[in-house]
Amino acid sequence: MKYLRLRHNGAERLGRLNGDTVELLDGDLFAAPTPTGETVPVEGIEWLMPCVPPKMVIIVHNIRAAVEKAGHPIPEDPLYLVRSPQALNWHQQPIPKPAGFDGRVFYEGELGVVVGKVARNLDEAQAADAIFGYTCINDVSALELVDKNPSFGQWTRAKSFDGFGCFGPVISTDPLPADAEIVTTVGGRERQRYPVTDMIFSPAQLVSRISRDMTLMPGDVICCGTSVGVLPMKPGTTVEVTVSGVGTLSNVYAPNE
Amino acid sequence: MKYLRLRHNGAERLGRLNGDTVELLDGDLFAAPTPTGETVPVEGIEWLMPCVPPKMVIIVHNIRAAVEKAGHPIPEDPLYLVRSPQALNWHQQPIPKPAGFDGRVFYEGELGVVVGKVARNLDEAQAADAIFGYTCINDVSALELVDKNPSFGQWTRAKSFDGFGCFGPVISTDPLPADAEIVTTVGGRERQRYPVTDMIFSPAQLVSRISRDMTLMPGDVICCGTSVGVLPMKPGTTVEVTVSGVGTLSNVYAPNE
Repeated sequence: MKYLRLRHNGAERLGRLNGDTVELLDGDLFAAPTPTGETVPVEGIEWLMPCVPPKMVIIVHNIRAAVEKAGHPIPEDPLYLVRSPQALNWHQQPIPKPAGFDGRVFYEGELGVVVGKVARNLDEAQAADAIFGYTCINDVSALELVDKNPSFGQWTRAKSFDGFGCFGPVISTDPLPADAEIVTTVGGRERQRYPVTDMIFSPAQLVSRISRDMTLMPGDVICCGTSVGVLPMKPGTTVEVTVSGVGTLSNVYAPNE
Repeated sequence: MKYLRLRHNGAERLGRLNGDTVELLDGDLFAAPTPTGETVPVEGIEWLMPCVPPKMVIIVHNIRAAVEKAGHPIPEDPLYLVRSPQALNWHQQPIPKPAGFDGRVFYEGELGVVVGKVARNLDEAQAADAIFGYTCINDVSALELVDKNPSFGQWTRAKSFDGFGCFGPVISTDPLPADAEIVTTVGGRERQRYPVTDMIFSPAQLVSRISRDMTLMPGDVICCGTSVGVLPMKPGTTVEVTVSGVGTLSNVYAPNE
């Protein structure tokens, strides 16, 4: 099943995809919402973020090819930060330029894991059961900030500018195909393609390990880290992130708007 | 004026201090709440966090004495991270031990700034006007994690364990005295005492600079950084953080509960 949120007749609504149609639902995405019988064609809907995450957790150094290329050690623990909730962005929305930063802004195509239950101190099997579904992530980053200060890596700032946390268009509750890939295209040209199996910590391992540090909540999104092929975006460029079996998230970098 | 939240007759209520009495209020703390006429004695109330922050932003390397002692450069930009909202904790609540970490846990006494308006791209005068008030912070930290991985400082993890973000007991909307100090006592013994004037970026400068990166929301709390005198907590120890003119936040480190 693929869930989404949309603005319909002025109201924020929950829906699920059925071919070219969106079936509208009432209730909470994480507590068995019920169809209302209303449907709208998917073409032309006003997309919203597919859920409202209490927090977005960003994993770094989790894709083997990128970690090896950068010469980082394989992490013993998931390495993470938390993004400002005001950075959240969604399908078909522009990515703005921050007021406080004039440098280059990079795309990062990633798998997103959406938590479905309150998750605290879970083992890996429990964690797998706490995963509600998957989404596509463009984990937009002002990477030049990370090493600007010699005594503190400005990871949170680099990733927390308003509009930098793009996810959607849907949350798919189907299991990922065993050979699922994450593909990023920039202006129609493929720039990243890597298998989900290249993750150092799998989705269930991430949820388990993080749940031993901090409680995860229904709707929390975990951005699973990116691979090689990250580049700065030119103004007006469309970046699309596709996760096999989930969908394609599309955003334009619009620094001059 | 000093505002707080409490549980009263089973409901979460807003109140303001008037001597030994709490006057109950209706409405939104940031939109002129109105007195109901009900009062309760402050002694024995069940405290809650004084507001529910959309995010808690943690500033590091912002107190001159600590930065100089550590040999860090004076930062050009506020250095910050965002704490998990599930880490928030309040007056008289125990500080638990995380499941995922067995090492030492440190107190950090700090000034907290509470934002009162949507703050986006503000200059310093506008930022001063966007500050609603001040609170006391114990920015609890598993500092040994910060440098555990050589390629990524685990600041967010070190500070995001459930219960590590203690703030309260109240939000004071009075201007801070010019000679205001932050004092931390551990088991009744003074361990930190430093003036707010030792901040590298003042509260208004912090709000201004951060608002150029990310939108700040009513209720957001900025933890302004700590000074020298940070030490690990022993189980059962009471840590109290006092900010002149604001109040005293008290929490017990209770790793065995």
